[in-house]
Amino acid sequence: MSVRCYHGDRRVDGLDRHADRGLVYGDGLFETMRVHAGCITWWDHHWARFVRGAGRLRIALPASNFIAHEVAELAREIGDGVLRLIASRGQGARGYFPSIDSATYWQLSQHRLPAVLPRAWVLRWCDTRCAIQPLLAGIKHCNRLEQVLARAEWHDPDAPDTDADEGLMLTIDGDVIGATAANLFIYGDDGWVTPAVDRSGVAGVCRALLIHGLAAKQARVTPADIEAASAVFLCNAVRGILPVGRLGTRTWSSRPALDQARRVLAALHPAFPEIS
Amino acid sequence: MSVRCYHGDRRVDGLDRHADRGLVYGDGLFETMRVHAGCITWWDHHWARFVRGAGRLRIALPASNFIAHEVAELAREIGDGVLRLIASRGQGARGYFPSIDSATYWQLSQHRLPAVLPRAWVLRWCDTRCAIQPLLAGIKHCNRLEQVLARAEWHDPDAPDTDADEGLMLTIDGDVIGATAANLFIYGDDGWVTPAVDRSGVAGVCRALLIHGLAAKQARVTPADIEAASAVFLCNAVRGILPVGRLGTRTWSSRPALDQARRVLAALHPAFPEIS
Repeated sequence: MSVRCYHGDRRVDGLDRHADRGLVYGDGLFETMRVHAGCITWWDHHWARFVRGAGRLRIALPASNFIAHEVAELAREIGDGVLRLIASRGQGARGYFPSIDSATYWQLSQHRLPAVLPRAWVLRWCDTRCAIQPLLAGIKHCNRLEQVLARAEWHDPDAPDTDADEGLMLTIDGDVIGATAANLFIYGDDGWVTPAVDRSGVAGVCRALLIHGLAAKQARVTPADIEAASAVFLCNAVRGILPVGRLGTRTWSSRPALDQARRVLAALHPAFPEIS
Repeated sequence: MSVRCYHGDRRVDGLDRHADRGLVYGDGLFETMRVHAGCITWWDHHWARFVRGAGRLRIALPASNFIAHEVAELAREIGDGVLRLIASRGQGARGYFPSIDSATYWQLSQHRLPAVLPRAWVLRWCDTRCAIQPLLAGIKHCNRLEQVLARAEWHDPDAPDTDADEGLMLTIDGDVIGATAANLFIYGDDGWVTPAVDRSGVAGVCRALLIHGLAAKQARVTPADIEAASAVFLCNAVRGILPVGRLGTRTWSSRPALDQARRVLAALHPAFPEIS
């Protein structure tokens, strides 16, 4: 699996072990992207979110055409799979103070496509809750301990005794925010709704495209809203739409609304063909 | 400046660039320790907090005697300065799921002692607030973007135009939690009080020793409590007690209570001699 490392505009062997703020403070950003037929799926959207996050954290990014060139080259090599871009603030000598002049460390890495489940997804509720932090909400920063702790609550997905495929997380206030590694859409009387991510959570790239494609509303979502929904799916930019079949004792079977959502996504990108 | 890197019980050249969870998720812990006369100040307390944090995050630590041996060896080399210990979960292939069998990456690094200010500290209020997250409160984990953003609000401490030496942070709920890189103690009618850190913040090693030594209470602290206090100091394990002289327009001059606190700390460790 290929990994390419950079310090500003310069290719390097690896992370500067002396003082990378990504390691000590999670002072960085990442994007996990689907590679399909040698190209990044929705690069422009990923890059826009990355730039937005870098602005929020005031991390200086190298020239976009240089990163885009390196990303495209690795994507051609990968063919079909996953490419992750990470940027961290690099070296900083004075504690939390973020030197603006230090060159950003970034790396590209290749990963395998996750296995496709031959059935609708089974969800659980996570005990671990997401904090409310508007300054970090929406962007894909590298402070992910809440997701790690939530994901640690249940078993290895490759183990035979798995009891869930994904977990839903609530905020400290009790609103549903999404799954540990995917956004959530529910279908009710008002059409499709997805949790707002202005106080917590990640503004997923696939989520943004489906909000537009399905004319979905962004709103506060409660556990009762999910119980009442007639169709539910998760989505992310690597896996596309993941239909949900069960959450606790509540079950859902295939619905026309879900078929429509998959048609919309299939029309948006050939990486996510409609499956009957 | 020396850096030593380890993967489990094995010395290595540096971080595994392929997939260190410390870099991508901030999935780790750290301790920043004062080295005095070739020894770690309060090693037992630092190690206890580290073990507590590793338990909370379920990060497997190598044998404590091995780490203690390596730490002691580097401390002898440093003489007087700062030693930082970082541990991160190391490689993990499946997203947020934390493989329990992967060897932990850890590293020791040498840093210079920060400059001693020849005056009482000037504080400011930070706009960046700390989220409420009881699962992460108290431990010194590597998700520190809130502190980075708060510290970025004002200038470089080495620059001539600095307008503050440290910043105080509030929680989302408006309680005072401490400074970006130090705990807070205030003296009022009931004696010394320090903000509780069960919902946010870090349970500092120097803080714990001073709670005991000063019979200080842990409580919710409001900005009004600070205004009303007759003496205020910050503390951490590297710098010891830092008397506060000003916060906004509120000023404090030296008080007997502060002198007493410094006497208590000086008696606790020779790294922090009482200064007249």
